[in-house]
Amino acid sequence: MKKNRICQLFGIQYPLIQGGMVWASGWRLAAAVSEAGGLGIIGAGSMHPDTLRLHVQKLKAATQKPFAVNLPLLYPEMELLLDLLIEEAVPVVFTSAGNPNLWTSFLKEKGCVVVHVVSSVKFAEKAVAAGVDAIVAEGFEAGGHNGREETTTMTLIPLVRNAIRLPLIAAGGVATGEAMLAVFALGAEGVQVGSRFVASIEASCHQAFKEEVLQAQEGSTELTLKELTPVRLLKNAFYQEIKKEYEKGATPEILAATLGKGRAKKGMFEGDLEEGELEIGQVAALIDTIIPAEQIVREMLSAYNSTLTRLYETGPFDL
Amino acid sequence: MKKNRICQLFGIQYPLIQGGMVWASGWRLAAAVSEAGGLGIIGAGSMHPDTLRLHVQKLKAATQKPFAVNLPLLYPEMELLLDLLIEEAVPVVFTSAGNPNLWTSFLKEKGCVVVHVVSSVKFAEKAVAAGVDAIVAEGFEAGGHNGREETTTMTLIPLVRNAIRLPLIAAGGVATGEAMLAVFALGAEGVQVGSRFVASIEASCHQAFKEEVLQAQEGSTELTLKELTPVRLLKNAFYQEIKKEYEKGATPEILAATLGKGRAKKGMFEGDLEEGELEIGQVAALIDTIIPAEQIVREMLSAYNSTLTRLYETGPFDL
Repeated sequence: MKKNRICQLFGIQYPLIQGGMVWASGWRLAAAVSEAGGLGIIGAGSMHPDTLRLHVQKLKAATQKPFAVNLPLLYPEMELLLDLLIEEAVPVVFTSAGNPNLWTSFLKEKGCVVVHVVSSVKFAEKAVAAGVDAIVAEGFEAGGHNGREETTTMTLIPLVRNAIRLPLIAAGGVATGEAMLAVFALGAEGVQVGSRFVASIEASCHQAFKEEVLQAQEGSTELTLKELTPVRLLKNAFYQEIKKEYEKGATPEILAATLGKGRAKKGMFEGDLEEGELEIGQVAALIDTIIPAEQIVREMLSAYNSTLTRLYETGPFDL
Repeated sequence: MKKNRICQLFGIQYPLIQGGMVWASGWRLAAAVSEAGGLGIIGAGSMHPDTLRLHVQKLKAATQKPFAVNLPLLYPEMELLLDLLIEEAVPVVFTSAGNPNLWTSFLKEKGCVVVHVVSSVKFAEKAVAAGVDAIVAEGFEAGGHNGREETTTMTLIPLVRNAIRLPLIAAGGVATGEAMLAVFALGAEGVQVGSRFVASIEASCHQAFKEEVLQAQEGSTELTLKELTPVRLLKNAFYQEIKKEYEKGATPEILAATLGKGRAKKGMFEGDLEEGELEIGQVAALIDTIIPAEQIVREMLSAYNSTLTRLYETGPFDL
């Protein structure tokens, strides 16, 4: 794995990136993943600039290893945040949910490695044109905000692989080493893992939310609110409220009013499982333990190795 | 691959099954796939019993190798068809779209190998209880009729793998050897390939439909009509008609009336790309050649081998 471009780009040991997740990925989780040899990410989406600065500083005190910040490009105080990232010498920035043309050159000029998260070939090509260093392609099954095309990881990764030459990181449905090997077979060179790290000891989300993730089964999540910003979430009481509005033929305005403000914080940070928004991927159905992030990394890499060896020893086909 | 349970169960050389597809998989396609070492399937869903008998007889005349018939369990003349399968000594029956309890024991008593197609763990477990010999688990990205849970192949295969011990065949998003390796990493022991074989010389669907499949890109298909029988299809003029009805708040009755009768035949068999229903998987976006079925099989196996070798030579992770 020494020639892996994702490892080379970030200066890390394993091409396993922990996704930046609102209300779940603060400095503790990021430090644990970076210390384990992957790339830890602080999710800035749910942080005021002062909070983010505190997290970055604590992260830098906790590890000497590379790390990143995930920056949704619709963030309201963007310029303040960008200055902060430069001042704190954040080495890698993952941008998402917006136009990569806006800030990529600025960040690159300041010496940041820039990665953009997309859910389609069209946006992957736009990100390449904007000058990013790598792409995360995220399939329909991923938790949280997502694209409208519904292209699944199994289809999206080879499509993006055929379209671009940059290092490619796969996300969506990847919570195990078996899935990591699967997306490597499809052409990815790294993985971004979200849901699995929600159910980690170090995740900053509420314990009740972590335990709810363990209860999830097939069909427990849905990508909804496509008229606003599409988001995959657990089908809890809040989701049922949204669903009722749809059944009554709700306009986007009514949906926005039902969503209101602060739902994600209420659900994932404060642990209100009824009234809050609980963002998680389909793959939650496969997750049934809350364990340290380092153990998640180790188990995934170990399962990658044993699955690869098993398939190789079973043998290629005689043609 | 000598110990592969799918090869052993069907008596075939490669665990690559051609999906039974309405209006596309007659005896010519099935014969070509079986001759190439996979398992060819006649799709009975679009055939009157007399037509099916003719196809089975022609297939038996064209190859000595094992083959199968796919039988949607909602078929209107089921008992007639079952008698026919027994009379013609069809060795393997794939059942789908219905309750596996209905006919599995009957078919097994008559000496058939029975495989059931599911889109969820729940139905996989029901099929196991009904006594089937193997399971096809088909993800959300697959073409044609599908489940309501929207569970993608990347999530579904490991979930089903964890739940059952029977031989497991993966379907949905598998049109290349890379994807075949991906689902093997996830725990499948065989693949069922539909869309890729629609774009084969031997497929019995209309040439105009095959060429339309080559034009498909990301976002060109959608799983719709969930209130009737969910189906993934190309977003053509007929789809836009359905979409307009949805926007007006259509009832299932209105949707059924808009669908009408014979849409699938009109689109896929008669080549009416505007008014017909064109069923295909998301993976159509990756397909850009119409080639002989034997070449599809060979290219997939060869890509499986080279991808496995590449990943193995890149090396497992140093832990």
